[in-house]
Amino acid sequence: MLKIAIDEKVIEDLLMSLAKIGQVGETGVSRMAFSEEWATAMDICRAFGEEAGLEMRMDAVGNLWARLEGKSRGPVVATGSHIDSQDPGGRYDGALGAVAGLVSLAALKAQVGQPDQTLEAVVFCEEEGSRFPTSGFWGSRGIVGKIAPEDLVTTRSFAGEPIGEVMASVGLDPARVGAAVRDDISAFIELHIEQGPILEAADLPVGLVSAITGMGQFEVSIEGKDDHAGAFPMDLRRDPMAGFAEIASSLIDHAHRLGRPAVTTIGQCTVEPGGTAVVPARVTFSLDARHPDPDAREKLYSTQDNLMREICARRGLGYTRKELINLAPCVSDASLLSRMKAAADDLEIPHLTMVSGAGHDAQQMALIAPIAMLFVRSEGGRSHTPEEFSTLGDCCDGTRVLAQTLYRIAYTQ
Amino acid sequence: MLKIAIDEKVIEDLLMSLAKIGQVGETGVSRMAFSEEWATAMDICRAFGEEAGLEMRMDAVGNLWARLEGKSRGPVVATGSHIDSQDPGGRYDGALGAVAGLVSLAALKAQVGQPDQTLEAVVFCEEEGSRFPTSGFWGSRGIVGKIAPEDLVTTRSFAGEPIGEVMASVGLDPARVGAAVRDDISAFIELHIEQGPILEAADLPVGLVSAITGMGQFEVSIEGKDDHAGAFPMDLRRDPMAGFAEIASSLIDHAHRLGRPAVTTIGQCTVEPGGTAVVPARVTFSLDARHPDPDAREKLYSTQDNLMREICARRGLGYTRKELINLAPCVSDASLLSRMKAAADDLEIPHLTMVSGAGHDAQQMALIAPIAMLFVRSEGGRSHTPEEFSTLGDCCDGTRVLAQTLYRIAYTQ
Repeated sequence: MLKIAIDEKVIEDLLMSLAKIGQVGETGVSRMAFSEEWATAMDICRAFGEEAGLEMRMDAVGNLWARLEGKSRGPVVATGSHIDSQDPGGRYDGALGAVAGLVSLAALKAQVGQPDQTLEAVVFCEEEGSRFPTSGFWGSRGIVGKIAPEDLVTTRSFAGEPIGEVMASVGLDPARVGAAVRDDISAFIELHIEQGPILEAADLPVGLVSAITGMGQFEVSIEGKDDHAGAFPMDLRRDPMAGFAEIASSLIDHAHRLGRPAVTTIGQCTVEPGGTAVVPARVTFSLDARHPDPDAREKLYSTQDNLMREICARRGLGYTRKELINLAPCVSDASLLSRMKAAADDLEIPHLTMVSGAGHDAQQMALIAPIAMLFVRSEGGRSHTPEEFSTLGDCCDGTRVLAQTLYRIAYTQ
Repeated sequence: MLKIAIDEKVIEDLLMSLAKIGQVGETGVSRMAFSEEWATAMDICRAFGEEAGLEMRMDAVGNLWARLEGKSRGPVVATGSHIDSQDPGGRYDGALGAVAGLVSLAALKAQVGQPDQTLEAVVFCEEEGSRFPTSGFWGSRGIVGKIAPEDLVTTRSFAGEPIGEVMASVGLDPARVGAAVRDDISAFIELHIEQGPILEAADLPVGLVSAITGMGQFEVSIEGKDDHAGAFPMDLRRDPMAGFAEIASSLIDHAHRLGRPAVTTIGQCTVEPGGTAVVPARVTFSLDARHPDPDAREKLYSTQDNLMREICARRGLGYTRKELINLAPCVSDASLLSRMKAAADDLEIPHLTMVSGAGHDAQQMALIAPIAMLFVRSEGGRSHTPEEFSTLGDCCDGTRVLAQTLYRIAYTQ
């Protein structure tokens, strides 16, 4: 099998050109959607694609597409990731997948010419929700038809600007947003940094993602009775902190014992009334629980609900659980997964198959096409911070697997 | 033994006159130290004392004293409690003890005339710290010489006013604050509502307080590592929430198993960075732990410290504990306690001996005299709220025990 070659230097040059746009400190990047920095970063991507002889266009939502026309008029095989960052984030989250797609198409065109099936590399305009708190996945939502006209007005930045107006300020016509919808994509593969420590712990550069986990977020409230911290004996209290502590221990321990890939996180906790010398009346906390298997996920949530219900009933505490987010798992396409594996084997790049615990644009793309993802090892599992880091070698290995997979799909060997 | 009679109606009248001053809603009271309402309430107490033929004077700090001169020139037996309230508090916290002292002296004078030992009833000017957050026990501190000249400037109201200026606004001369110091008190008994549920649970109107508990307040911080709630497997996390949950469960359970009068409360908890989808980096919480026995208290704190240290070490978490408050227990005088018991037995008023879990002016007074306290049953154990309630019958029973005790001490039978 022919091996598509990827030049580390090309990846480094494009990634570091982008890292300078919206640079914060030495390694941080603050590249908010539809900002000046964003537009400059898009120009850099466009220039790279044009230089490589790819057909470049920006769609109506602000996604930049690079196209390598195939011999057949059939559907398109696409890859890519997002160009916007956290505020500040690092150099790799999103950007690496955008770079990998462009570099892969450039390498394929240069090394094997016109494909049978048309290839496209997309640079999604917005994924993080870091400028517009409710805009997450704006770019991929535009492609799959999940932006409603009212979203252009109701989706507002932290500064209060409607996203439609901000889009207009960079030359996009918000009235044309529907024109970004695609119905001609037959496969989508996203490369992204792992954002977790699994590859590092396994000492492997690349992961093949078999599923993006399903996520549930809940707000749980435990009600007791506030009393004087000195005058109320322990045996007469209805202390919601005691209930919360038992619940938090039980849920975290339960997820731990279930083993990977189940996770449960309590990241927020509010105690009322909040006096040092007052037995609390209420403890409210956030519960984030994820599992990529649909049945196991439902079982996880019902087990947690039953556990909390039992603990609160036994302690005479009130219990309410409000669902805030419920995202179904997104399972990768088996055929794409086996082609990624074959590609990694072609190149003798060691890898494992794993689950993504974080959400990605690929989840949106799954509404219109089979998807799969490739992960590149993250040092310390860090992301959403200027400290996130992946070695150039790992970035290149990931891109090689991506290009080789696209070769296996879009070209007749 | 002669039984001193107390007229329920007299207690009701004085208590309800005070309840109207600074009234909030139907049963709430907001009577901030040195306010207009405070001055009016003091006038009502003064008028009651004068009417009863007691010698009334306000000291340099703002405490109002009623004196019933004894035949001997020896030291004084004193009683009383505070007139200021929480914002808003209820009708009973503080006020009942002030009323009980005045009513007792009036009854003693009327029924048995001049005592051998001089009796005084004090209405403390400030105890709650509800107007000046650091002023707590201002009145009794003045009497025991624990107000430094700089405190008059540095003790400021929530609105920023120095307490010295506010005192001057009600006609007190802050420069004379030292004149309030007393060195001629041989016993002090404070009557107060229980603020807890122990008497109610035991179905008894009155408690004899053998000690005011010792209190330690700590700020504890547990450090882990913040990670992505989806991408980080449970087995690779250093989650301070898991450590906190185990600690909170262990400490609350430990105090519960120790049994009364040990108590432990976690009333505040802050989770950082506080994202629903972020494994926390740090959990900081308040720890309030109390025990009236000095050795048992030290053992409680060291057991807690060791438990927290062990849990954090086992989980790879950082641990720091900062002591914020350390108040030694205040043990009641055995002789005063036995006289209170004899008085309750004289009157056939059922009672138990118990510990105060809350702090009181009597703790300050203990610096200059033997002390004891009497508790009156609180409905539902409530206090520091407009809902606090004690029946008139219980208020009267408490006052009867107080008057009978003063009779036993200050008069030759």
